[in-house]
Amino acid sequence: MGAFDDLFSDDVRSFVPSPVRAIFKNYDFTDMISFAGGYPSSDTFPVKDISDAVSSVFDKYGPSLLQYGATEGAPVLRKALSERYGVEVGNIQITTSSQQGIDLCTRVFVNPGDTVLTSEPTFLGALQSFYSYQAKVKGVPYSENADELAANYRKAIDGVILSGSRPKFIYVIPDFNNPTGETLSFDARGAILDVAGQFNIPVVEDSPYRELRYEGEDIPSMYSMAPDMVLHLGSFSKILAPGFRLGWIFGPEELLSRITACKQSVDLCPPMLDQYVAAELLENGVLQRNLVRSVSMYRRKRDVMLDSLQKYMPEGVKWSRPQGGLFLFLHLPEGIDTVSSYDYFLSRKLAYVSGAFFHTDGSGRDTIRLNFSFMSEEKIVEGIERLASILRSSY
Amino acid sequence: MGAFDDLFSDDVRSFVPSPVRAIFKNYDFTDMISFAGGYPSSDTFPVKDISDAVSSVFDKYGPSLLQYGATEGAPVLRKALSERYGVEVGNIQITTSSQQGIDLCTRVFVNPGDTVLTSEPTFLGALQSFYSYQAKVKGVPYSENADELAANYRKAIDGVILSGSRPKFIYVIPDFNNPTGETLSFDARGAILDVAGQFNIPVVEDSPYRELRYEGEDIPSMYSMAPDMVLHLGSFSKILAPGFRLGWIFGPEELLSRITACKQSVDLCPPMLDQYVAAELLENGVLQRNLVRSVSMYRRKRDVMLDSLQKYMPEGVKWSRPQGGLFLFLHLPEGIDTVSSYDYFLSRKLAYVSGAFFHTDGSGRDTIRLNFSFMSEEKIVEGIERLASILRSSY
Repeated sequence: MGAFDDLFSDDVRSFVPSPVRAIFKNYDFTDMISFAGGYPSSDTFPVKDISDAVSSVFDKYGPSLLQYGATEGAPVLRKALSERYGVEVGNIQITTSSQQGIDLCTRVFVNPGDTVLTSEPTFLGALQSFYSYQAKVKGVPYSENADELAANYRKAIDGVILSGSRPKFIYVIPDFNNPTGETLSFDARGAILDVAGQFNIPVVEDSPYRELRYEGEDIPSMYSMAPDMVLHLGSFSKILAPGFRLGWIFGPEELLSRITACKQSVDLCPPMLDQYVAAELLENGVLQRNLVRSVSMYRRKRDVMLDSLQKYMPEGVKWSRPQGGLFLFLHLPEGIDTVSSYDYFLSRKLAYVSGAFFHTDGSGRDTIRLNFSFMSEEKIVEGIERLASILRSSY
Repeated sequence: MGAFDDLFSDDVRSFVPSPVRAIFKNYDFTDMISFAGGYPSSDTFPVKDISDAVSSVFDKYGPSLLQYGATEGAPVLRKALSERYGVEVGNIQITTSSQQGIDLCTRVFVNPGDTVLTSEPTFLGALQSFYSYQAKVKGVPYSENADELAANYRKAIDGVILSGSRPKFIYVIPDFNNPTGETLSFDARGAILDVAGQFNIPVVEDSPYRELRYEGEDIPSMYSMAPDMVLHLGSFSKILAPGFRLGWIFGPEELLSRITACKQSVDLCPPMLDQYVAAELLENGVLQRNLVRSVSMYRRKRDVMLDSLQKYMPEGVKWSRPQGGLFLFLHLPEGIDTVSSYDYFLSRKLAYVSGAFFHTDGSGRDTIRLNFSFMSEEKIVEGIERLASILRSSY
C-alpha cells in the first residue's frame, strides 16, 4: 500500500493501461514480427518535406509561431482543413491528437455511471477513455443489414432509458473500423443517425482511416449527413505522421464551444510548430502526394496479407477483406483462446492483439486483430506463415 | 437553450474561460500596450537553432522519431532532463505542456467536492483546472514569516478536516509566484513541507519560472527537499518556447505511475518532433546559451518597469520587486476597482489582468498583475506612464 492511496480520485481506479502499449514496453522485440500496434509505416513519413516546411514556416511567419496560440487551433491550420474538407472554420477545433478528441468528447458528456453506446467491437483507446471517466459502456452488435443495425441501436437505447438513464452519445468508426476493418454503408450510417436523431443523442464519428481507401467508393461522412448532431474526429496520424499528435474535431458550435472551454484548462492550445508545418504540407500539396503514395503502399501490403492468409491458413479460419484502413480481423476456430495463448505466440516471436480487448462484453477471445501497415511485405508473408503453422499445431 | 443541454456532464458547468485569453480574442490589439498575458518575448526564440535541430534529429534518428512514442515521454528527452536537473529518468514524466501537468495532477486526486489548498493569490490556469473538476479551492494567505505561513497552512488544513474531508494536495508556486512575483524562502518551503508531511498531503510545486532569476541565489526546489511527497512541474515554455507545448513532472513513482496511466487515455504521448528538438537543444547547449540571453533581456525589462513605476506612479501605489519571473504586482489605493474599470483602460489602449482573477475569495480588486517580458523596453516606459496618468486622474 502506498502512502497516498487514500487520496486518489475514483477515476484512478478506472484507468486501464492499454495491453497494446504494455506489449511494446515489456517485450524484447528483436526478430519479433508484430501485427499488434496500429502504427503507420515510418517509410511514409515525408522527412525531407517536413524539414523544408520548418524552414519555410519560419521564413513566412517568424518566431511568433512559437508563441502561445489560440485554444481552437492555429488559424492557418483551421483554414487549410476548412479548404480540404469543406467545413467552416468555426466548426473546426484542432486537438492534440485524435485520442484527445475522444477524451474531450467523453469529458464533456459523461458523469460517472452514465452510459456510452459504441459499435462492437471497437477501438481500445476509446474504451480506455470511456472507462477512465467511469462510464458504463454498452456495445451494439454490428449487422450488414441497415434495418437490423437500426433495431440493434434502438434496443440498446431502450435498455438504457428503461434503466432510468439516457445514453450520452453513440461512438462509431464508420470507415474501416478498428479492429474489424468493416465500413458502414450509406444506409447503415443513415439508419444510425435516424435512431440517434429520434432520441436526440449526439454521434461521435471517429474516422482516422477515412482517406486510406484501397478500393471502392468513398461513402459520405456521418458529419456531412447530419452536421448538427455529429462530432467528427480526424487525425494527421495516419495520413502524415503520428508524432505530430494533431487531430481535429468537426462539429456544431453548440458542442464545440464546450469542448474548447474544456481544452483550455486541459492543455491551453495544440503544439504550434507542428500545426504550422501540417498547414504548410496541406497547402503545398505534400500531404496529398504523400497520401497517394501511402495508399498504394498499404494496398500492396493488404493484398500481400490477404494472399498469405489464403495460401497458409488452415481450414476454419476466417478473415475480413477491408477496403481500407490498417487492420484485418481473424476469426479462429472455436476453442482457441487468443488471450491465454498470447505469451506462447510472443515466445514464437509473433505479436498480435486479441480481439477480446476490443469487446465490451468479454467475447472475442477467438478473434485477433492483424495490422498490415507496419511490417514490410516480406515480414508479412513470414508472419502469416508462422501464425498459420502455430495454429495448425492446435488442430 | 441548445439541443443537447441536458446531456452535458457536470464538469461542463465548471469550465471557466480564462479572462486573459478572452481579452486576446475579442479586442483589437493595434497600438495596444499589453501587460496582460504571460507571454515570453518572441525575440528569445532560437528560430535558426530550432530549424537546424530539426535537420539534425532527422539525420540522427531517421523517420521513426515521427512515430507513436512512449507515454512517459521520449527516452532521449527524459535522459537530457535527467542530466540537467539531476533527477532519475524513472521519476520524470513528460507532459504536453505544464498546463497538462496541473490537469493530470488534479484529475488523479480530485473527486467533485474535494478540496485543493493553494497559496493565495495564485495562477489563474491552475484555478481553472481545479474548478473544472469541481474542486473546492481554499486559498492560504501568504506570510513572509515561515512560522506564520506554517500556521496559515495548518489552520486551512484543520478547517478542511473539521468539515469531514481532507485536502487532496497543496499547490504552490515557490519561485517568482504568478501573479505576485514573490519567492518562498528556504524556511518557508520547509515549513510548508513539514505541515504537509504531518498530514500526509502531497505538494504540487509549479515552477515554470525557476530558471529566470535576475538577482539573488537559487533556493532549493521543494521537490529536492522532499522527493517522496512533491510533484514538481517544469516547462519549456519560458526557457525555450511556449509553442512546443512541452513540460515535465518530477515525482515519486507511486504518484507518477497514476499520472502516466491517466495521460495514456488523455493523449497517448507527447508530440514527438518537439521532444527530439528540445532534447537536441538541451544537449548541444543552445537552450542554456539562449536562457542566459533571455535572463539578461528580462532583467533589463524588469528594471525598466521598476524605474518607470518609480518615476511615474502617484502616491499610494505599491509594487513588488521580483527577483525573477515575468510579473510585477501592483497594489492600488483603496477605492480603485481594476475589474470594473478594465474596459476603460482597454479603451485607453492599455491591457493588464486584474489581481482579482488570481484570488479565490473575491478579493484583489485593487491589485493588478503586470507582465514585463512581452513588450519592448520603449513600450514598457510608455505603458507605465500611460497607466500612471490614468490612475492619477482618479485622485
